[in-house]
Amino acid sequence: MGKILSLSAMEKLLKNSGAERVSSCAKEELRDVLEEISNDLGKSIRLAQHSGRKTIKGVDIKLAKR
Amino acid sequence: MGKILSLSAMEKLLKNSGAERVSSCAKEELRDVLEEISNDLGKSIRLAQHSGRKTIKGVDIKLAKR
Repeated sequence: MGKILSLSAMEKLLKNSGAERVSSCAKEELRDVLEEISNDLGKSIRLAQHSGRKTIKGVDIKLAKR
Repeated sequence: MGKILSLSAMEKLLKNSGAERVSSCAKEELRDVLEEISNDLGKSIRLAQHSGRKTIKGVDIKLAKR
């Protein structure tokens, strides 16, 4: 995994959904989950794209997450 | 949504999975998807937690994503 998302953002996300405290393992685990999902989305978008189009659009994400 | 994740991180994630170019709509859409998932995970963790424990651990994320 690329470790692109910051751990502080992971902490904010969990606190926003009601957590009082968040362990560093939990932040790392959430980052892994989100990066994995994003990677899967990205791959399915690439597969679905027409050969001519190189730009990923919002509608591609909407379609791929279904 | 909280708009916690940065759009530049969304762009990196999509480029890492092979996108050449990413529209700003796509970045916003990916952020929404990831924040929604994170929020759902967080809520199910909170529901599952024992009343005495206030810290979210890595294992909680692992269990909740199933």
